[in-house]
Amino acid sequence: MAKDLTPDVLNHLCPSRQVLNHVTSRWGVLVLIALQDGTLRFSALRRRIGGVSERMLTQALRLLEEDGFVRRTAHPVVPPHVEYDLTPLGVAVAAKVHALATCIQDNLGQIMAQRKE
Amino acid sequence: MAKDLTPDVLNHLCPSRQVLNHVTSRWGVLVLIALQDGTLRFSALRRRIGGVSERMLTQALRLLEEDGFVRRTAHPVVPPHVEYDLTPLGVAVAAKVHALATCIQDNLGQIMAQRKE
Repeated sequence: MAKDLTPDVLNHLCPSRQVLNHVTSRWGVLVLIALQDGTLRFSALRRRIGGVSERMLTQALRLLEEDGFVRRTAHPVVPPHVEYDLTPLGVAVAAKVHALATCIQDNLGQIMAQRKE
Repeated sequence: MAKDLTPDVLNHLCPSRQVLNHVTSRWGVLVLIALQDGTLRFSALRRRIGGVSERMLTQALRLLEEDGFVRRTAHPVVPPHVEYDLTPLGVAVAAKVHALATCIQDNLGQIMAQRKE
């Protein structure tokens, strides 16, 4: 593969940049972390992610579904029952996002202390 | 530490959520990755990150500096010479961000193939 065709998020013409934007979007990050615990219905997912609106959650889920990280399953029942879970690729990406969040959580004391200086 | 005081990015009242937002911001992510290669001047950093404007880069650098991930060094010369590099905490966080980007880059073929389905 020619060097200029190697995926590189620092290149704004590379499609990996767009995928990274979806995965690191404000709510996309939290959807991936929340779905690590397993399959969730929309309402349960929304309760899990503090502060998210219905509209923002719907949009984040759609982008992650398009990229193949999240699977949407609609059960044909009344009332409608829609569930979300991670695909194998979603599990891989969510693990990386979770490691980043854990790094921040673990160092929050130091980060906040530095801010006050 | 009480359970409700444990840092949790899913809790919108937890300060870790805001730090995660800075780190995963569109340009913050790329600044952390670009600075992994070492110290860079503003102009070199801007060239390294395709598509970033001067204003957006300045803003991303300021937030990462406030959180203690990036260090700004202004050398008192004419013309001004300002350099940016990662702090030890920034190195740790950048490694996690880089692992996420690498995961996406490595799976880009599969992601793009799924999208076409």
